[in-house]
Amino acid sequence: MSTVIEYLRSRREENLAEFLEYLKIPCVSTTGHRVREGAEHLAALMERAGIDTRIMDTAGHPAVFGEVKGPEGAATLLVYGHYDVQPADAAEGWTSPPFEPDIRDGRIYARGAADNKGQHFAQIKAAQAYLETGAALPINVKFLIEGEEEMGSTNLGAFVAEHRDLLRADIACSSDGSLHPSDRPTITLGCRGLLYVELISRGAGKDLHSGIYGGAVASPFWRLIEAVRVLRDEEGRVRVPGFYGAVRPVGEADRKALAEIPDPASELAAALGEEGMRRIPEPAAFYERTLVQPNLNICGFQGGYSQEGVKTVLPGGARAKLDFRLVVDQDPDQIFGDLCEFLDSEGFGDIEVERKAAFFPSKTPADHPLIEKILSAVAARGEPPIVFPNSGGSVPDIHFTRDLGIPSLWFPFANADSNAHAPEENLRIDLLHRGSELATAVIEGLA
Amino acid sequence: MSTVIEYLRSRREENLAEFLEYLKIPCVSTTGHRVREGAEHLAALMERAGIDTRIMDTAGHPAVFGEVKGPEGAATLLVYGHYDVQPADAAEGWTSPPFEPDIRDGRIYARGAADNKGQHFAQIKAAQAYLETGAALPINVKFLIEGEEEMGSTNLGAFVAEHRDLLRADIACSSDGSLHPSDRPTITLGCRGLLYVELISRGAGKDLHSGIYGGAVASPFWRLIEAVRVLRDEEGRVRVPGFYGAVRPVGEADRKALAEIPDPASELAAALGEEGMRRIPEPAAFYERTLVQPNLNICGFQGGYSQEGVKTVLPGGARAKLDFRLVVDQDPDQIFGDLCEFLDSEGFGDIEVERKAAFFPSKTPADHPLIEKILSAVAARGEPPIVFPNSGGSVPDIHFTRDLGIPSLWFPFANADSNAHAPEENLRIDLLHRGSELATAVIEGLA
Repeated sequence: MSTVIEYLRSRREENLAEFLEYLKIPCVSTTGHRVREGAEHLAALMERAGIDTRIMDTAGHPAVFGEVKGPEGAATLLVYGHYDVQPADAAEGWTSPPFEPDIRDGRIYARGAADNKGQHFAQIKAAQAYLETGAALPINVKFLIEGEEEMGSTNLGAFVAEHRDLLRADIACSSDGSLHPSDRPTITLGCRGLLYVELISRGAGKDLHSGIYGGAVASPFWRLIEAVRVLRDEEGRVRVPGFYGAVRPVGEADRKALAEIPDPASELAAALGEEGMRRIPEPAAFYERTLVQPNLNICGFQGGYSQEGVKTVLPGGARAKLDFRLVVDQDPDQIFGDLCEFLDSEGFGDIEVERKAAFFPSKTPADHPLIEKILSAVAARGEPPIVFPNSGGSVPDIHFTRDLGIPSLWFPFANADSNAHAPEENLRIDLLHRGSELATAVIEGLA
Repeated sequence: MSTVIEYLRSRREENLAEFLEYLKIPCVSTTGHRVREGAEHLAALMERAGIDTRIMDTAGHPAVFGEVKGPEGAATLLVYGHYDVQPADAAEGWTSPPFEPDIRDGRIYARGAADNKGQHFAQIKAAQAYLETGAALPINVKFLIEGEEEMGSTNLGAFVAEHRDLLRADIACSSDGSLHPSDRPTITLGCRGLLYVELISRGAGKDLHSGIYGGAVASPFWRLIEAVRVLRDEEGRVRVPGFYGAVRPVGEADRKALAEIPDPASELAAALGEEGMRRIPEPAAFYERTLVQPNLNICGFQGGYSQEGVKTVLPGGARAKLDFRLVVDQDPDQIFGDLCEFLDSEGFGDIEVERKAAFFPSKTPADHPLIEKILSAVAARGEPPIVFPNSGGSVPDIHFTRDLGIPSLWFPFANADSNAHAPEENLRIDLLHRGSELATAVIEGLA
């Protein structure tokens, strides 16, 4: 066993105690509550670890940047994470208060335990282990821990553009998300993109009594559902011209990775139950459909009455909330323009389209040389990782692959049942410690 | 001036004071809050007025029944009203607390002032005026004041069926709703019916992350909007077979009444503004379309995310909330069955249809002899009433016209801007007093 691993194992109690302190700060970015205090606490924690750290302003909440130098000419790893957390209401299903970390059955229960404090904490402890044992850190490591991920990383793109030189690296590694339910090390090499739009059908501008006005004023939903349905054909393919034109064929290495992901049938059944499974006509094609293919989803309709029970209302306006999931190299900006033109050409010029959110799809090929080295190094620790060509959901990966021009992997340490974004968020203590050890595998892989 | 009118005018202060006490009881039927106390207060008030009164049980909140006998062989008038009120949240736009009546600018501000306490109070005071002046009451008057109107009068049909003999009358008069904005006496002779259904498209049974599942699981909204749109043709006509088959042609007297309603253009413009008016292609045909023709309205969609902003969710199920407004002699029971069959025949057997509420349409012809007598008696008081062949909204009129087999008029006393069901509900004091006087015109008309 290496000195670094030995050291990490000897420091488990101290590391855990330090981590629990970090969890006590409710740095909820959407409310702005004690966010700067979170950045300051993290910066102090990184400084104590021997990392040269500074708090850097953005147009929103600050980012924390840190750097540890390795040998001249060595590779540089950029570790990404976020210290901001989701809101948490103690009244909604928490056994212990969300910002008073509680240990039960080998898990730490607290908001942010898994998403994402525990995961970048594990990365920091890995770097610290090299510094404190005197084992030479074989590469340069930079840390970029932002404070706005739970708000959609709104200012991350501008920050990366402004600090390209500072952030220059050979590869990015983000420890966010969660492990495959088998606990096997899990590496994801990109993400689907997102274009979230609202289609708006104008009505009287205020809700009316459907008895008094129904017949003279039409519900704006009649028009809206016609507009929404022209967006797909009967097979569910998106009808916006050019939508599939930019889709890059799946490469050989990604295709191989896709085939090697364990069959999802039993996990899906556990997560969705019988009723849910009936909605997945081809469980075996689950990853093909959710990772490699784009999709158009209706999230919901806004307007009129949308709660339980009866209300006879003639809506004053109506909105359809749609998300397009995109794959490389689909461009949400381009698609937004094409969508507006398409609706116009189909006779829906009266339907307004509002762009609400966009993420570019992003990918790093599974056969990139640095990725192959890391995969080998992780496998050498005992278990070959499960490799996802990309995730179905959307993360700000584009700022690494496109803006910094480097390969990027997502290497989470948290348990699959961490309840991120939900009550009872938790992180298994064994996985917190394993995370630091796996982080050293990345460092060794790049050495 | 008659003794009765003189007496009513001399008692205005006492009547107002008594009315304010009645308004203090928050008999909100949907919460059940102090409803029986409301019934007891009303019964005591009626007893003091000289009406032989009893509180009668229903399967829900009790009804209050009262009776005053006139000469042997005289006509019998059944006055309908409701003592239950809509909920009211003091925090939502009330200047004074909703159950602490406040007088400002000649109006009484309180929940229930107009809907409906003030209006049946005026009827009670009219009967009392005959009894206290010793002027012989020329007809029999019965009162049925129920406690569940704001919940949809769920148990009124059963109550009427059970007490047909007790309720036997020659005509029903309901003082609910509001006057034409001109303040001219307003008489409505029926209502459109209602069939409120939910179309249900089943999904996974719980909301899913649209990134993780989108593509493998389809949003249930895709299916639902297809089912909804087949219900109408391009002209907006309902495609359910037989839907228009039972529609009774508009009679001559009703057609004439329709033509004599003042042009709604300026009132509509005031109520809806420029944006709203753009949604009424034919203001001159407003009453034709909203009173005499049926309509199918989409109230809203339930499922997934329907609030402001962005949430990327794949809905676990979806519901369309639809209301059919029906005209005589459309039968909501028949139409419900036809609707289910039609969806099935169109290939939507997977879409469930839930029946949520139903009212039968109801009508009394404008040339019914008793109606003609009342119209003359009201006109003799100074102003000829505006006659609506029926209302666009739905009221439990069918229990009088069909179940008791008698003509029925709706004769409201409240101002058009009473804000019923909204904050700042109010009743103009002059109209409260005028209401009692107009109620005596009905009595005289039937004498």
